[in-house]
Amino acid sequence: MSNYVEMWKSLGMDLETHDALCQVLPTAFGDVYLSQKSRPEAMNFWDFVVSEIHGIRPSELIEAQKNGQKVFGTFCVYVPDEVVIAADGIVTGLCGGSQFWVPDGEAVLPKSTCPLIKASVGARLGRTCPFFRIADMYVGETTCDGKKKAWEILGQDVPLHIMDVPQMKREKDIVKWAEEIEEFAGVVEKLTGNTITPEKLNHAIKIINEKRKALARVFEARKSKLLPISGKDALLMMQIAFFDDPVRCAQMANKLADELEERITKGVSVFPEGTKRILLTGTPLAIPNWKLHHIIETSGAAVVCEEMCTGTRYFENLVDETQTTLKEQYIALSQRYMKTNCACFTPNTGRIDDILRMAKEYQVDGVIDVNLKFCCLYDTEGYTVEKALKEAGIPVLGIETDYTDTDEQQLRTRIEAFVEMLG
Amino acid sequence: MSNYVEMWKSLGMDLETHDALCQVLPTAFGDVYLSQKSRPEAMNFWDFVVSEIHGIRPSELIEAQKNGQKVFGTFCVYVPDEVVIAADGIVTGLCGGSQFWVPDGEAVLPKSTCPLIKASVGARLGRTCPFFRIADMYVGETTCDGKKKAWEILGQDVPLHIMDVPQMKREKDIVKWAEEIEEFAGVVEKLTGNTITPEKLNHAIKIINEKRKALARVFEARKSKLLPISGKDALLMMQIAFFDDPVRCAQMANKLADELEERITKGVSVFPEGTKRILLTGTPLAIPNWKLHHIIETSGAAVVCEEMCTGTRYFENLVDETQTTLKEQYIALSQRYMKTNCACFTPNTGRIDDILRMAKEYQVDGVIDVNLKFCCLYDTEGYTVEKALKEAGIPVLGIETDYTDTDEQQLRTRIEAFVEMLG
Repeated sequence: MSNYVEMWKSLGMDLETHDALCQVLPTAFGDVYLSQKSRPEAMNFWDFVVSEIHGIRPSELIEAQKNGQKVFGTFCVYVPDEVVIAADGIVTGLCGGSQFWVPDGEAVLPKSTCPLIKASVGARLGRTCPFFRIADMYVGETTCDGKKKAWEILGQDVPLHIMDVPQMKREKDIVKWAEEIEEFAGVVEKLTGNTITPEKLNHAIKIINEKRKALARVFEARKSKLLPISGKDALLMMQIAFFDDPVRCAQMANKLADELEERITKGVSVFPEGTKRILLTGTPLAIPNWKLHHIIETSGAAVVCEEMCTGTRYFENLVDETQTTLKEQYIALSQRYMKTNCACFTPNTGRIDDILRMAKEYQVDGVIDVNLKFCCLYDTEGYTVEKALKEAGIPVLGIETDYTDTDEQQLRTRIEAFVEMLG
Repeated sequence: MSNYVEMWKSLGMDLETHDALCQVLPTAFGDVYLSQKSRPEAMNFWDFVVSEIHGIRPSELIEAQKNGQKVFGTFCVYVPDEVVIAADGIVTGLCGGSQFWVPDGEAVLPKSTCPLIKASVGARLGRTCPFFRIADMYVGETTCDGKKKAWEILGQDVPLHIMDVPQMKREKDIVKWAEEIEEFAGVVEKLTGNTITPEKLNHAIKIINEKRKALARVFEARKSKLLPISGKDALLMMQIAFFDDPVRCAQMANKLADELEERITKGVSVFPEGTKRILLTGTPLAIPNWKLHHIIETSGAAVVCEEMCTGTRYFENLVDETQTTLKEQYIALSQRYMKTNCACFTPNTGRIDDILRMAKEYQVDGVIDVNLKFCCLYDTEGYTVEKALKEAGIPVLGIETDYTDTDEQQLRTRIEAFVEMLG
């Protein structure tokens, strides 16, 4: 990625520290990804993106900014990309998934903050990620205590708009969220200088719906008895979906889905028969957090679905495309987003229904409920999740981990024992 | 308290376990409180209440229930007592402040949950606190991740209404909170069978305002250069204010304030000249959590103010008494409650203003910013608080602790060093 040095310099990055990251990433990727056998050819795209992760997409974004477009950095699947796209803006995810950024986060946040938040704050304040430097505005939300307070620290360094996500899911909360979306639209219009019209918003809704459908097709293929793709590869596609152009993302996911569907017809599987099928539930796995998938898929099992923000929560449910006024469209957007079952809501029984449904649809042998250390929401909800699974007779293993490597052997032991125990 | 055994039995309590609690409390209270010199005479009332803590008030509540009144248990200074009083209901605080209840909480909650929540859940599920058994309904709120998810577990055991506290403080959030108050009023009317009229609500508003004014008078006396009361004693009054009848609470606080004002005139101080004055900021100290006050006040310093829920956040700001329709009254209530600066809001700059103002008003020598372990909100906000204090040239010590005794010696060493360092 050395041909991007000038770009990084102009972004005010800490080149020396960033260099260390650039050096470990290819090895990590090689060990985890390139060692896999009979991967779908369509994965070449994502392999390429990773190989230039801090170069190719950032340079596209900078090019777009030169043409007057604005880039919005987001941290949550609740922030509606549609509104930004409708104003000719660009959205990029900003969640940090590497331990590399954690120490810079811990310089200002309590150690007992979840690693995703520490890494995200650290990536910004340490100036070691181009995406965090490029975004013209950050969009925060009130989904959890850690993020809610982290915005106050990040906001001293970068323009930040906060959306107040309702904490419950009553009828009036859908109206309330629609109002937040409308307010956000005003902020986006002001920064981009572009007016959001019903036509533009409708076009944006269709773009994001197409992306959702394409990602859903890949997941649909993972329901097959013969597995045409590893969990790792599906995760990589999802992780990069947050950073990529939505139209290209849909194209590439559709291309991958074509190949997977062909594989299913031809009876091609990337795992030997009898490999145990695992549903992962819980906190998101931001790029390059491949730790758990790697352990599971080298322990005699395959991850067939992620009930996570970096999984089904990102693409399930479509926005109604038939509304013709902004008011109605904001309500339609709110209705779709409020269907997403995050542990930040109380109660959140819909998530239990989701998990039980997915366990069936993806024909899983067991569920691993994974929690990022100090994520109070998913950790506490884990009690309810595990209880419901046990009552349904589905084996479940609760795991807590962070971004470090220190617990890898211990996790491996526990996961191997769990997989062995499965029917 | 043995003459209450029949009452506890009828409440379905775990008598054997509860007995252990009854045995340690008097000793703890004796060591911390009764060892103090020249305490105000008016403290006799609170000493008596503590000596019968699980007997006298619970038996009053049960008597009231026999007469058809309903008891609402609350966990947050944001839940408006006025609405309950207006429907002839009774409010009792339910926050647990003892390590005794923590293990029962940890049976269902992650260990990395704040001790206040673990103790509260444990007190209910372990059946070792009469207040938790008596309440006809619990009232939860969405102020923090831990509580938000704990309601789901508590709600399986007891009727629970949840109020969605806005996470921000914009004009529309005041309207939204007024709507939540109105919805709560409907729930209270239904359970009590009584209609809330503007007259009744106005009367209730006055009752709670009078209580606030009385508590404020005691705090006003603490601003005096000569300290007529220890921080410990003021804390005890505040802690019991959450459980007591509001009219009696006001009477007793006014009686105490009379005595304190007289002491100031006479030049009576409970601390030797030159004792360092400490402002405590941070997370609430629920009864019987006297740990930090005891350490500070046996380390050459006095606590002169608590910027806490068990402190100024409980009584500062009055509700406008001039409104005459329910709609207007709900807005007036919302306006008052939304002035309270809890770390659950983002941004929460008002709290920094409060702390700097109190540091001046109470003539403090230093600030101790105390965080209950795993309270992400106050822990993260501590960064901003301590920065602001340092910029203002006010010495500050950040402390994290829980309900155990294991860190007492370490805390004492740090606090003694801090006090010694003060001017």
